[in-house]
Amino acid sequence: MKDRRLEKLARVLVDYSIEAGEGDQVLLSGGTVAEPLIKEVYARLLDVGAVPVPLVTLPGTQEVFFEHARDLHYEKTPPALYSVYEQADAFVSVMAPTNTRALAGVDPRKQQALGRRDKPLREMVLGKDRWILTQYPTEALAQESEMSLGEFEDFSFEAMALGEDDPVAFWQEKSRKQQGLADRLDQAEEIRLLGPETDLTLSVAGRTFLNSAGSHNMPCGEVFTGPVEDAVDGTVYFGVPTAVAGREVSGVRLRFEGGKVVEASAEKGEEYLMSSLDADEGARRLGELGIGTNYHIPRATRNILFDEKLGGTVHLAIGQSYEKTGGKNTSSVHWDMISDLREGGELYADGELIQKDGKFLGFDLGG
Amino acid sequence: MKDRRLEKLARVLVDYSIEAGEGDQVLLSGGTVAEPLIKEVYARLLDVGAVPVPLVTLPGTQEVFFEHARDLHYEKTPPALYSVYEQADAFVSVMAPTNTRALAGVDPRKQQALGRRDKPLREMVLGKDRWILTQYPTEALAQESEMSLGEFEDFSFEAMALGEDDPVAFWQEKSRKQQGLADRLDQAEEIRLLGPETDLTLSVAGRTFLNSAGSHNMPCGEVFTGPVEDAVDGTVYFGVPTAVAGREVSGVRLRFEGGKVVEASAEKGEEYLMSSLDADEGARRLGELGIGTNYHIPRATRNILFDEKLGGTVHLAIGQSYEKTGGKNTSSVHWDMISDLREGGELYADGELIQKDGKFLGFDLGG
Repeated sequence: MKDRRLEKLARVLVDYSIEAGEGDQVLLSGGTVAEPLIKEVYARLLDVGAVPVPLVTLPGTQEVFFEHARDLHYEKTPPALYSVYEQADAFVSVMAPTNTRALAGVDPRKQQALGRRDKPLREMVLGKDRWILTQYPTEALAQESEMSLGEFEDFSFEAMALGEDDPVAFWQEKSRKQQGLADRLDQAEEIRLLGPETDLTLSVAGRTFLNSAGSHNMPCGEVFTGPVEDAVDGTVYFGVPTAVAGREVSGVRLRFEGGKVVEASAEKGEEYLMSSLDADEGARRLGELGIGTNYHIPRATRNILFDEKLGGTVHLAIGQSYEKTGGKNTSSVHWDMISDLREGGELYADGELIQKDGKFLGFDLGG
Repeated sequence: MKDRRLEKLARVLVDYSIEAGEGDQVLLSGGTVAEPLIKEVYARLLDVGAVPVPLVTLPGTQEVFFEHARDLHYEKTPPALYSVYEQADAFVSVMAPTNTRALAGVDPRKQQALGRRDKPLREMVLGKDRWILTQYPTEALAQESEMSLGEFEDFSFEAMALGEDDPVAFWQEKSRKQQGLADRLDQAEEIRLLGPETDLTLSVAGRTFLNSAGSHNMPCGEVFTGPVEDAVDGTVYFGVPTAVAGREVSGVRLRFEGGKVVEASAEKGEEYLMSSLDADEGARRLGELGIGTNYHIPRATRNILFDEKLGGTVHLAIGQSYEKTGGKNTSSVHWDMISDLREGGELYADGELIQKDGKFLGFDLGG
């Protein structure tokens, strides 16, 4: 039985997120289990006259890579693959893990080396700006979220507003409403986060808050910027557990001085955290401050694409920043960590209370 | 339970067929159901230091293409895809259909248009010479062959000599033995085929017989050339049914005059036959005369990759010839049709009887 929501999702991704048009070459990448969605997107791209270039990954390919690859394989992205990215006008990526912990046993240095190898690819995608990342509900993601597949499908598609008659219109409207928040924060020089075990001050002077409502992630709903690299001070507790690079990391505590992480610990996955912070020069500084605005997501599910959008949370990413925010940090790492402000949290912009207990004050964002 | 024969097959393809070495970029294409083999080949390529570039196709993608593609999609190969082929040093293609008749209802003109569109890709692969085409045993292929999957796996792997301790050595030896036949035929100016409803004379003057023993197809076992384009006369009956482009065509009869098909009929699939003959200028002339030498294949199974290798058969392809044979015919079509000479057939080279009732005279090829 065909799920009509996938057809709607394909339209959101193709017509709204990347605005594909005649002759656009669109790299369509994803795992094979996302087959139903990939085929919907493929068909929709053809319908609008775009030229789909599917790049489908078999489950387990990365595991085989890490097991068999030799040093030379970490040196550079295969040129043939690089040229596909080079020629593409836009990108649709569908994550569809069959096992969210498959890489738990892989040496993090190998993962970092692969991350460094493919950094030029990611930069190219970001540079072209027409890219959208989404997730197809799989058993593995449902399991990670402690739901049945059916429940997780509903959870996912609700977060993407696919129950709406016209989800494209929904995201357009969402974008319009969010712009007010982005405009307000753009005026601010300093953001302060207060919450459980958290008191952090970030300078955002001269930086741009971007309004993200389905242009790069689906589900979406956040405004974000790149904080000033040497002006982050205080402590922050990330109470929302994440599954990152195949392992769980939770209960992360960071202390910043002059923008740099000077103390770090994790209740789970501390070794991986430390290894990431030491990956390169930029990994101990922030690349992103994001504020979630999606209140259709009821709770965190160890799924970063969803959790970071959760209305009432903020996320900070160590590592690479997004150029368009004005952020200048460079790193092979970009790791989002999430702090829940829904119970006892406060978010200030230049001393003005913008959000309390996870609800925005004076902004109609559904919180 | 892992099938060790797949590991052997991966070694044959990687080490023997394309002789992959350090730094070689290898385009590894195939259908997702061939996952176990694709992963073995991927691992083996990494082991030898080659750089695999997997290009995996979801089942049903072609159907979606033919249903949704617009005129512009038939104009040229997506440049991003073209550049992958351009940059690859070698090619491993694994056919793995999930439905051999899925395209039966597609307008043949669309299929021909796609064939024309991608002709430059095929020419590039042929030009680079390091390419191997194989088939992964799927339920669809087993069904087409009227076997269970287990039976068809045994049938396939036996034809590939994967029961041997060292199949690479087997194919090397096979190649050595076959060279004698190729050398003999290279001396000939004229080949004559006699058999049921068949009396055909082909000039091969100045053309080269190539010895094919696993360098381009697996399974393999044939010697072949490109007959002189305007010097084929007589009639030929192709008693072995084939499944081509998603439909069955069987009982084909062709009459040649001066190299050109002047009369054609088919017991089944005649419409598609006619449409193929009219695809372009070169489609009514022969691109190939091949002689099967694989006696590990017990019978025809409507599977061209296997059937054309069957010891005791010859095949003729209308359309495109292989440059290396000296053949000069060009066409978007290359369709192999198979004539069974095992009962009452004779094959002459310049009047000398080379094969009778499907058995070679004076050549140790296992017939």
